[in-house]
Amino acid sequence: MQRKSFSDMQCPIARGLEHVGEWWSILILRDAFRGLTRFDAFSESLGIAPNMLTRRLNALVDAGLMHRQRYNERPPRDEYLLTQRGRDFRPAMLAMLAFGNKHFPPQDRTVEIVNTATGQPVEPLLVDPATGKPVDGPGYKVVTTMHRRDAA
Amino acid sequence: MQRKSFSDMQCPIARGLEHVGEWWSILILRDAFRGLTRFDAFSESLGIAPNMLTRRLNALVDAGLMHRQRYNERPPRDEYLLTQRGRDFRPAMLAMLAFGNKHFPPQDRTVEIVNTATGQPVEPLLVDPATGKPVDGPGYKVVTTMHRRDAA
Repeated sequence: MQRKSFSDMQCPIARGLEHVGEWWSILILRDAFRGLTRFDAFSESLGIAPNMLTRRLNALVDAGLMHRQRYNERPPRDEYLLTQRGRDFRPAMLAMLAFGNKHFPPQDRTVEIVNTATGQPVEPLLVDPATGKPVDGPGYKVVTTMHRRDAA
Repeated sequence: MQRKSFSDMQCPIARGLEHVGEWWSILILRDAFRGLTRFDAFSESLGIAPNMLTRRLNALVDAGLMHRQRYNERPPRDEYLLTQRGRDFRPAMLAMLAFGNKHFPPQDRTVEIVNTATGQPVEPLLVDPATGKPVDGPGYKVVTTMHRRDAA
């Protein structure tokens, strides 16, 4: 079943989801953050069908999250690199990682954010940089403001 | 086409995605964070088919992100409330909101995290609470540790 498009929804969460695409796209981005760039490497990591992987990589390029770069002329081979927009998705992914670790921890491995100086695992917090306080707590809320179409 | 299950993947990002479900589930959670609890309210907000909404709400209950509570006996009516696990997904959603706002801003409205004392919009940062530094920057990395199955 084709999922309905969210592009007509004006919520930025829905729009972010729309452009990132779907689960496979998020997992491709995860692998790109780990340093993978080549089709074969993504393919091996994810174990998805090549045509599906091609479609997802194309969608990420179209959405401006990755760009293609030729690394071999004969035969022609491209690698896929994160754009700034793609890198900006990383905090959302790390927040998802923290959620997954807390509530659905994997059994045979640990995947953690680590402070490289101390080696300590980090449970990250989403804060207001101006105050250092968590935006998911008291003193913060999500506010929706409609704009009049005829406004200057 | 049925998407492949991620449940055999040991990555906590994949496992988090698996249990949250899919885009509709995330948007249901978004509405639950806004205070919606009733089937009709979710239905009106999302404009999805009732059978799809039922399936998604059931999946969120099964995954322990929401729970059902009877609010009317005749006729029997349940509302859907976030569990602690469901509330713990909020930072991931707010990080997604910030990403969507930055890169795919909606045209006819603004949806922002706001400091309620100052009224200022907040661009949140995912930090290490021990140092206040962004975990998406120098000094932090994601580390995977495999556990031996025969380990004590």
